[in-house]
Amino acid sequence: MDAQDIRDLIQWHVTAARRAEQAGFDILYVYSGMGYLPYQFLLSDYNRRTDAYGGSVRNRVRLTEELIDAVRNATGGRCAVALRMSMQELRSRPSDVAESEAHELVGLLRDTPDLFDVKMDYSAFDCSPSRFSAEGSHEPVIDFMKSVTDKPVVGVGRFTSPDTMVSMIKRGVLDLIGGARPSIADPFLPQKIDEGREADIRECIGCNLCISSWHDGVWVRCTQNPTAGEEYRRGWHPEKVSKDAAGSVLVIGGGPAGLEAALVLARRGFSVTVAEAGHAFGGRLIWESALPGLRQWFRVIDYRLGQLRGMANVTLYSESPMTAAEAMEFGADHIVVATGADWDAALCGANEIPVGRVNGPGVFTPTDLAAGRMPAGPVAVHDFDNYYLGSAVAEMLADKGLAVTYVTTAGNAAAWAFMTNEQPQVHASFARRGVQVRTSERVAGFDGGVLRVAHMLSGAEAEVQVASLVIVGARVARSGLAEELRALGAASVHLAGDAHAPGALVHAICHAHRVAREVAAVPVLRRDFAVPG
Amino acid sequence: MDAQDIRDLIQWHVTAARRAEQAGFDILYVYSGMGYLPYQFLLSDYNRRTDAYGGSVRNRVRLTEELIDAVRNATGGRCAVALRMSMQELRSRPSDVAESEAHELVGLLRDTPDLFDVKMDYSAFDCSPSRFSAEGSHEPVIDFMKSVTDKPVVGVGRFTSPDTMVSMIKRGVLDLIGGARPSIADPFLPQKIDEGREADIRECIGCNLCISSWHDGVWVRCTQNPTAGEEYRRGWHPEKVSKDAAGSVLVIGGGPAGLEAALVLARRGFSVTVAEAGHAFGGRLIWESALPGLRQWFRVIDYRLGQLRGMANVTLYSESPMTAAEAMEFGADHIVVATGADWDAALCGANEIPVGRVNGPGVFTPTDLAAGRMPAGPVAVHDFDNYYLGSAVAEMLADKGLAVTYVTTAGNAAAWAFMTNEQPQVHASFARRGVQVRTSERVAGFDGGVLRVAHMLSGAEAEVQVASLVIVGARVARSGLAEELRALGAASVHLAGDAHAPGALVHAICHAHRVAREVAAVPVLRRDFAVPG
Repeated sequence: MDAQDIRDLIQWHVTAARRAEQAGFDILYVYSGMGYLPYQFLLSDYNRRTDAYGGSVRNRVRLTEELIDAVRNATGGRCAVALRMSMQELRSRPSDVAESEAHELVGLLRDTPDLFDVKMDYSAFDCSPSRFSAEGSHEPVIDFMKSVTDKPVVGVGRFTSPDTMVSMIKRGVLDLIGGARPSIADPFLPQKIDEGREADIRECIGCNLCISSWHDGVWVRCTQNPTAGEEYRRGWHPEKVSKDAAGSVLVIGGGPAGLEAALVLARRGFSVTVAEAGHAFGGRLIWESALPGLRQWFRVIDYRLGQLRGMANVTLYSESPMTAAEAMEFGADHIVVATGADWDAALCGANEIPVGRVNGPGVFTPTDLAAGRMPAGPVAVHDFDNYYLGSAVAEMLADKGLAVTYVTTAGNAAAWAFMTNEQPQVHASFARRGVQVRTSERVAGFDGGVLRVAHMLSGAEAEVQVASLVIVGARVARSGLAEELRALGAASVHLAGDAHAPGALVHAICHAHRVAREVAAVPVLRRDFAVPG
Repeated sequence: MDAQDIRDLIQWHVTAARRAEQAGFDILYVYSGMGYLPYQFLLSDYNRRTDAYGGSVRNRVRLTEELIDAVRNATGGRCAVALRMSMQELRSRPSDVAESEAHELVGLLRDTPDLFDVKMDYSAFDCSPSRFSAEGSHEPVIDFMKSVTDKPVVGVGRFTSPDTMVSMIKRGVLDLIGGARPSIADPFLPQKIDEGREADIRECIGCNLCISSWHDGVWVRCTQNPTAGEEYRRGWHPEKVSKDAAGSVLVIGGGPAGLEAALVLARRGFSVTVAEAGHAFGGRLIWESALPGLRQWFRVIDYRLGQLRGMANVTLYSESPMTAAEAMEFGADHIVVATGADWDAALCGANEIPVGRVNGPGVFTPTDLAAGRMPAGPVAVHDFDNYYLGSAVAEMLADKGLAVTYVTTAGNAAAWAFMTNEQPQVHASFARRGVQVRTSERVAGFDGGVLRVAHMLSGAEAEVQVASLVIVGARVARSGLAEELRALGAASVHLAGDAHAPGALVHAICHAHRVAREVAAVPVLRRDFAVPG
């Protein structure tokens, strides 16, 4: 960039500021973090300029300063100007005049913006899943801000607990709490705190599924809040439904889908009975949330059980397996079947279609592990699901002291989980735990002692000596009960969640929500989305 | 899917057909290939049904047949119905009554659709780059169609040569030629053939950059045709520009950007002189197109040189290096500097910013290789560009008999090239050529005999014994000449292509095209895209 380029950049900010004011905004942001151009001026790794914008920290901060001034002047001071910065790299760099380059920089800018909005960096570690980072994980990077500037400071860190938020303010770390993910999970988070309704907060589980929507460039989805992204198109409110129903519903299965369906059905006014076969509610999450790092995912169950237990028109039964005949006999007007899915021992074919099968005492699926069967080591985990579970199973087995080889059909461990910012941390976790990784390979056979693997592209075969094999690949819906009920003449039977189509938690909960909205009702799409009749 | 689900699916096709007719379409497609649901019925890998839609080929084809009939009836036969099928998997399956399941299937459907549209499959090998597949690569899979059905057959295969197209028709393989990529590169391909203007065809180079746009869900881009995706927004015609200019332009640099700029400037009416320092035109493509599989990329140069050589207002000089003083003395009204970029020996830092540098007789960049310097083996290729070049260099070195270790910061070889359907074939090519692959590692040091690599995530270090290191990482623009010209007082100096900002070929050519449109002109954006003043 030459001097004219810099003037152009500042001028573009000026015209953008005017448009923003005209569009009704009160606070305008200058972005000088997360790899954006002004941040590349701040960081000496990028900035090798020899003019007034390069070299010393004083020079490197000049562009950011000029941008803030230009944006402020553009609206005659009518709009406040906020500065968003990434601090992690700068804080790791020594400074001659301050504790770090971050301290020096903020000192130079201390009175320039009206608001500092600060965070770690721009990596997958910044917006990290709960699997790998606790709430408030930015604090060690941004805790010095208030000692350097008197301007208000806002920060993020997947804050979901009111106590943590209050602590951040009281300890003088932040003046304002920022929270994108928690607000997606519960848009009424601030109001519920204000009203002292902490138990009603639908806490973000930190699965980062929302971030996959951003990576995909599609409408946001949220595991905890199935209405996210459907507020306009379907007119779904996060908590309210029309109280439009009467009659009774039997929900069979008390996992994520069953409980979500029950909650929506109960809010609609149905008399709802949930029958869960096992001794506890939670479905797949009972076992999965006990895997390394996944504890917070159980909030899916906690929130729904908490709400359901306070409702007079809901009855919850555990240890209540139901046959089709028993369900018919129960006599509810509608039946929702949310019986989940089983992991299958099918292998992955050369064209990535599940094909073949290995059996034997040394072969396991997550369904087996959840039932308490444990493989002997050394163990291979064959992942062609390629989201979180295969890697979490490998971590759990390694933590139990087994020698683990993780074999994936993809080029990376937990390949799809790059969408949720998990993947780099899975790699690091495997390195810490000594999990061996084999990529781009499928399992071609296993005889109880030797695992044959074949390269997905070259077909080259290799052998690995293991005593056990865990296959995390395809799933099969447990939809049989619904078919039996229909065969017995049940008029209103609805499959929900994994029992309908196995997917991620977000899919099961969203599907169950929709099914519950549509039982004995007409589906609604706004006119501008609707299909002509 | 139960029987009602199948009826629903067919009914959705019926309503879609009616909407399509209402919207003015004449031919309606039923998709029964590429992983779409009807294809999953055709293929026994997916279809494990035990009802009338599963088992025999006769049963598996039933859904496709019913869809075609339903779509035809939906418009009362006013629209033709085409069937798109993938044939590769089906052709590899034996049949009791025909040469393969593909033959049997097409035999059963022989009179059902009005048009067969057939292709290989739905993998990266189907829509394969020229780097790995020749024109017409689908023929061995679909060559039997005309022996089984009398209905017209259309097929694809990146057809760019009129001779190949004519041969497909004359030999009875196809009745109609399909070509998406060639039509993006040159929308006037059929007209140019019709008018006998084969030399004017802007032939698709098969880089598959267009497919990356599809993967990204953004407007199409094309290396050969920089106007693709800008027809509406900027009003760019693929071949025509307003003849709005007079005066002279000196274009310095005869690579892809310089030639594109020269062509547009000449069409606008300028008197254009191109000064190329080297003995041949072509820039980076002179060397790169000699790498394994990249020969067709030189069509970028062939097309532009061919056009320029027929224009009276264009003069092309090779072996004509230009200093700033010489360029000033030349006295053109405008100067376009298209001097390209150099590959840099910077390394990749832990946070993926180019940092540090290794020097020494055993260290090379692609710029060195292009200049004729050859590394000694064993050699490591360190790729953190992660598009095509690092892998093509590794292939070239392996073909010369060197032992090659490819080290990438990414999780896969040629990581970004999954966007162009290259990546799986790069993996296969490496396996064939014996190139060793190390992933998620950066080079931490090299002393001429030992290469130190560090894992990107765990930081774990390892050593590799190699005699040479080729770094395919960052590039630095050769923009110095433009700066000197401005310092000497040149009034109208324009950087174009890599000299402005190093990028892929598509970026350089698109940028040069835009610069050439905008020399002494006012940039145009349609009102609905334009920024308020």
